[in-house]
Amino acid sequence: MIRPPTPNDVAALTQAVHESVRDVSRWMAWCHPAYAEADAESWIRSTMQGHAEHSAFEFVIVDDGGSLIGCCGINHVNQVDRFANLGYWIRSSRTGLGIATRAVQVLAEWTFANTALNRLEIVVAVGNLRSQRVAEKCGAIREAILRQRLMVGGQPVDAIMHALVRE
Amino acid sequence: MIRPPTPNDVAALTQAVHESVRDVSRWMAWCHPAYAEADAESWIRSTMQGHAEHSAFEFVIVDDGGSLIGCCGINHVNQVDRFANLGYWIRSSRTGLGIATRAVQVLAEWTFANTALNRLEIVVAVGNLRSQRVAEKCGAIREAILRQRLMVGGQPVDAIMHALVRE
Amino acid sequence: MIRPPTPNDVAALTQAVHESVRDVSRWMAWCHPAYAEADAESWIRSTMQGHAEHSAFEFVIVDDGGSLIGCCGINHVNQVDRFANLGYWIRSSRTGLGIATRAVQVLAEWTFANTALNRLEIVVAVGNLRSQRVAEKCGAIREAILRQRLMVGGQPVDAIMHALVRE
Amino acid sequence: MIRPPTPNDVAALTQAVHESVRDVSRWMAWCHPAYAEADAESWIRSTMQGHAEHSAFEFVIVDDGGSLIGCCGINHVNQVDRFANLGYWIRSSRTGLGIATRAVQVLAEWTFANTALNRLEIVVAVGNLRSQRVAEKCGAIREAILRQRLMVGGQPVDAIMHALVRE
Amino acid sequence: MIRPPTPNDVAALTQAVHESVRDVSRWMAWCHPAYAEADAESWIRSTMQGHAEHSAFEFVIVDDGGSLIGCCGINHVNQVDRFANLGYWIRSSRTGLGIATRAVQVLAEWTFANTALNRLEIVVAVGNLRSQRVAEKCGAIREAILRQRLMVGGQPVDAIMHALVRE
Amino acid sequence: MIRPPTPNDVAALTQAVHESVRDVSRWMAWCHPAYAEADAESWIRSTMQGHAEHSAFEFVIVDDGGSLIGCCGINHVNQVDRFANLGYWIRSSRTGLGIATRAVQVLAEWTFANTALNRLEIVVAVGNLRSQRVAEKCGAIREAILRQRLMVGGQPVDAIMHALVRE
Repeated sequence: MIRPPTPNDVAALTQAVHESVRDVSRWMAWCHPAYAEADAESWIRSTMQGHAEHSAFEFVIVDDGGSLIGCCGINHVNQVDRFANLGYWIRSSRTGLGIATRAVQVLAEWTFANTALNRLEIVVAVGNLRSQRVAEKCGAIREAILRQRLMVGGQPVDAIMHALVRE
Repeated sequence: MIRPPTPNDVAALTQAVHESVRDVSRWMAWCHPAYAEADAESWIRSTMQGHAEHSAFEFVIVDDGGSLIGCCGINHVNQVDRFANLGYWIRSSRTGLGIATRAVQVLAEWTFANTALNRLEIVVAVGNLRSQRVAEKCGAIREAILRQRLMVGGQPVDAIMHALVRE
Repeated sequence: MIRPPTPNDVAALTQAVHESVRDVSRWMAWCHPAYAEADAESWIRSTMQGHAEHSAFEFVIVDDGGSLIGCCGINHVNQVDRFANLGYWIRSSRTGLGIATRAVQVLAEWTFANTALNRLEIVVAVGNLRSQRVAEKCGAIREAILRQRLMVGGQPVDAIMHALVRE
Repeated sequence: MIRPPTPNDVAALTQAVHESVRDVSRWMAWCHPAYAEADAESWIRSTMQGHAEHSAFEFVIVDDGGSLIGCCGINHVNQVDRFANLGYWIRSSRTGLGIATRAVQVLAEWTFANTALNRLEIVVAVGNLRSQRVAEKCGAIREAILRQRLMVGGQPVDAIMHALVRE
Repeated sequence: MIRPPTPNDVAALTQAVHESVRDVSRWMAWCHPAYAEADAESWIRSTMQGHAEHSAFEFVIVDDGGSLIGCCGINHVNQVDRFANLGYWIRSSRTGLGIATRAVQVLAEWTFANTALNRLEIVVAVGNLRSQRVAEKCGAIREAILRQRLMVGGQPVDAIMHALVRE
Repeated sequence: MIRPPTPNDVAALTQAVHESVRDVSRWMAWCHPAYAEADAESWIRSTMQGHAEHSAFEFVIVDDGGSLIGCCGINHVNQVDRFANLGYWIRSSRTGLGIATRAVQVLAEWTFANTALNRLEIVVAVGNLRSQRVAEKCGAIREAILRQRLMVGGQPVDAIMHALVRE
């Protein structure tokens, strides 16, 4: 269901981003109408480097037929204190089906099994209700409201800190 | 009272670290008996790169006579979401005098005046009471207990998240 | 969908209150079996004064056919600190349809666009689960349990503070 | 130690305000260099009305010699839900002596003995450390950070909600 | 819907436990494949003693036909401070139907009506999402994350404290 | 500094309790003017049983000269979930000297070294500021306000949950 991205994903990823601009760009600055295949290529290359250096573990989410339906990943890895950020997005035509929840659960399990990380943080803007619901359904626990923790649309906004912790 | 470190600080910094091993090494892994001038040199060089690249803003704390009495700094800068980590330590012979509190206040003021950062996080292990008191006295607000957020002595421990926010 | 009440709403409002006594009176002291058209008239007059003085912005919620299905509003306006209370109720025959959630979202948007208020508080008794769900679904963030913050049935009860904040 | 203000307090109050502009005006908009005896008169008259109408219970704090050293009071009384705001300030020449703490304790005791209020809220801007310490020392319990709850210097700021509750 | 267990429940209880080992044993150490009728007998006897001594009030949940579909109860009663723990489990073939929620509501009502207890705590491991949902739906309010409060699978885990309070 | 009580402590303990009635009885129901040597004897006997059964670990605090200056202990041990309550009191003539803080630190260290307990809870009534300060100074972390968790003077009151956790 999740696998590392490869250069073959460029076209599908670009298409998925374009399809999702209306929903995703509000919350994630990298998602915008001018997103091009070159952006996808560059990101995929960086994810390969991330896996190699253990600085980020990004994945594409694919359905049973192999179609790309979103991305999820571990990034901002802090190897000293062994925590990282966990992020995800689903292409607009496939939201509302519980895909993000299952993908995050698989990703978290993979991460606790294959890395030394103890803590995965899911930080969501207070206005992003859909993403908060994913965090809660996959078992991340809400710990706090962090003030001005994210930039959304060029403005600082409060965010909710959820965390999955190794047990 | 605070200024960027220079190569001239190598000897004083090394001495300050050695003097403080018993107090500081428990909480900060970089502080240990084998700390050498080469470590100080390497750190100082990295702080110069940090200032240049705007990825970290590290400072030494000096007294009126110019003696090095500790360090404080901004690091783990996230330029997309405009937040960073704020850290500090005082050499053992100068603790208990309110120096860290004043230095952090100056540092935070400098940061809000000279960078685009909106939020400075002070993350302290639950057992580190002295450092928690500094965070509170300099006006950082306790937002939450973050589970397993730090490694202390090779073990994950809970930490208290305090934050100073631009107003 | 929401509009200021007018004297023409007296009959419909009185009927809606009577229909809802069993559900609403438990949580809101103004709602009781003896509620009369005079009470509706008096409240409507006070809402007109509220709009005029900017001390409260009360609305009725109407369906596509113009029928009154509930009320929502901004009150306890603090013009110095620019925050206010946000309240709502739906007549018993129309609950469970998501009407309150949509009305509150429209109301909050209107308020941030048309007033200087920065913060809208939704304070719900701990036992009032249905109302808590509305607060969460419309994007208000739970900030705390406030002890003995409301009177319910003549007794002080704890309440949950949710807030929507201007961004 | 605390008593209702009277018209005889006008001169002393005006003087105390002027003496305290540097410390108090940052946090309280009513305190500014142009504060005149007319402002004191007007406020004292309003406090007499407040006591009469049970809408506010404002007091001056006086020392053993009868000199005015500050004010404290209950205001924003909500008679339906039986809670109110509790505020205080001490003239600059008398701060740091624990006067506010003792005055607030007397005030809270008076309020629970003489009114039906169940809950007294002390809401302090996150940057106002001195006032937070008073709230903690007099036994009010910190319940939450309320986002953008106060205006300070024309900007919305987060505030800490402390409360004293009738037992 | 809920009634005290009797010796006649031994067979049905044992069967229900066996049916539920896969779901329940992860969270509750008493539930394991070797659970025998002797364990059921012993537990039922202890519940009778609990009712007699007012130290625990355990119940079986039965459907309209009288079949045993789970258990719920009050235990760890602290008679000095008048609080207790509230627990529940539903046999695997009957989960997902809202039975636990209704049973807990009946149990809490019974407890507040028939005992002097003021506070019922529902403490759920952070990973046990299904049980957290029951706690929320029956009106218990989440108060905190308690660190290392439960043992699950031989390891200490964090838990969420929910409470129902007498009003 | 701390040792298990012995029958020889009866007289000193009774005297310490009497001396402290005014300060302690408000918060702890067992402390009252009628406390007699028989009560001390009975308590000491029960602490011996507690140590033997690992159900409670109560200690007396003694000064360098061997005089009894207070008590501290671990009780309400939950052996399944490996947590317990931690309590303390200091005789009135010896308060304010930091004795409780040091004794609790020794007690917690002893407990983590000699038992399987993972979590020690210090639960303090919201009005008991002195005891809250001890909890904070000995490194217990405030986790939440628990509503109506203690009985004080025959009334339910809110309490602050602090915890020390094994690391």
